[in-house]
Amino acid sequence: MPRVKLTIAYDGAAYAGWQVQPARRTVQGEVERAWREITGEEVRLTASGRTDAGVHALGQVAGVETSSPLPPERLLRGLNAKLPDDIVIVGAEPAPANFHATHDAVRKTYRYQIHNSRIRPLMDRGYVWHYPPAVLDAAAMQAGGDRLVGRHDFVSFETAGSDRATTVRTITRLDVTQRGERIDITVTGDGFLYNMVRAIAGTLVEVGRGAKPPEWVAEVIAARSRKAAGPNAPPQGLVLVSVEY
Amino acid sequence: MPRVKLTIAYDGAAYAGWQVQPARRTVQGEVERAWREITGEEVRLTASGRTDAGVHALGQVAGVETSSPLPPERLLRGLNAKLPDDIVIVGAEPAPANFHATHDAVRKTYRYQIHNSRIRPLMDRGYVWHYPPAVLDAAAMQAGGDRLVGRHDFVSFETAGSDRATTVRTITRLDVTQRGERIDITVTGDGFLYNMVRAIAGTLVEVGRGAKPPEWVAEVIAARSRKAAGPNAPPQGLVLVSVEY
Repeated sequence: MPRVKLTIAYDGAAYAGWQVQPARRTVQGEVERAWREITGEEVRLTASGRTDAGVHALGQVAGVETSSPLPPERLLRGLNAKLPDDIVIVGAEPAPANFHATHDAVRKTYRYQIHNSRIRPLMDRGYVWHYPPAVLDAAAMQAGGDRLVGRHDFVSFETAGSDRATTVRTITRLDVTQRGERIDITVTGDGFLYNMVRAIAGTLVEVGRGAKPPEWVAEVIAARSRKAAGPNAPPQGLVLVSVEY
Repeated sequence: MPRVKLTIAYDGAAYAGWQVQPARRTVQGEVERAWREITGEEVRLTASGRTDAGVHALGQVAGVETSSPLPPERLLRGLNAKLPDDIVIVGAEPAPANFHATHDAVRKTYRYQIHNSRIRPLMDRGYVWHYPPAVLDAAAMQAGGDRLVGRHDFVSFETAGSDRATTVRTITRLDVTQRGERIDITVTGDGFLYNMVRAIAGTLVEVGRGAKPPEWVAEVIAARSRKAAGPNAPPQGLVLVSVEY
């Protein structure tokens, strides 16, 4: 059957994450419902990976096997007309017959967004971690983040309970950028363990607030223990930016 | 009595505008309620001006006469603790005894935000006019906007029913900026008539979509008739950015 590759943006606030669950509202469930309304087909989407409850995406990718004759551009418009305003199909294109959104993903980029001010955020309040207690040192956070770049066993940054063959991953890039009260941690890698980016953000905030020096991040990796790292930063600051194939 | 100058940011979506109205939820009403909860005082805020239902602010300014002994910094924290998450006090400072937020305002800056894409906006969906029908020419919009800069009778850009002595205003600056799918019209002036910025945005979109040439904007001013201008752009794209005193 022909396959279509969908690129999907969503505000995760109202959803119990990406993946379909009984009796819960999920992003996947909404897209599959919209697909059914447009084409009459019951499909199952295969995504690049799950995102947790409350996590956002600008470029989640999902593949669909379909026998619908509708061209991708028509599917895109039809789905967007049927989806709620917190889910947007931003791309639809034909995919090769062997395309698999999970297995074929070679790189993912996440961004963790922090509003570092004693005053609450307004327009981006749904998309940031409001962190008022201290002025974060973005340069120190970058210096700490530099220790994460490369091929490492990231088990210290993994929440237990996930199913994976290995905890070794490669981070190819990690940038800490600051603009006014906003600090973003943008991280690209070949794959991420469960809650890994949120643990990285929580760890770099420990460095940014001065509780730990940048070198400590190397110790956290070496410890191979979740207890060594900082706490998980909250989900609403996390955005799946893009997936490369 | 001592006066305090508050700078207030809000998401206007849930409010019937700034100004207190019977049985309606308004931004002013929320701030006055929070003030009462903090200080026990019944106060009436005087703002730089009203904003309409659905319009946002990053820097609305309001003055309060108060006999509260609380220093402004404490008021700010207390108010923010009592306000909903779509209203944020971003500044509180002592004001001169003769300070009047309406009469003393010498300049205001508004921004009108357009999402120019056939695809719906996601994260900024509450703060833009989604305009899919045509690709707007931002350079032409700037050329049209240049005609508005200066001292003019702006009656063609005024919605009837407002109470004002004159329809002459001075626009000191108008910038049309584009970044990806986002086009912003930022306009600074000594005052604005009722719905004037929304009429300017609607007029410049007529130019941007190619229905009218930039020179037409001068004809609209000269016509001194609301019918000559474009339609009012919708309220959710409008942001009161700052007020200068």
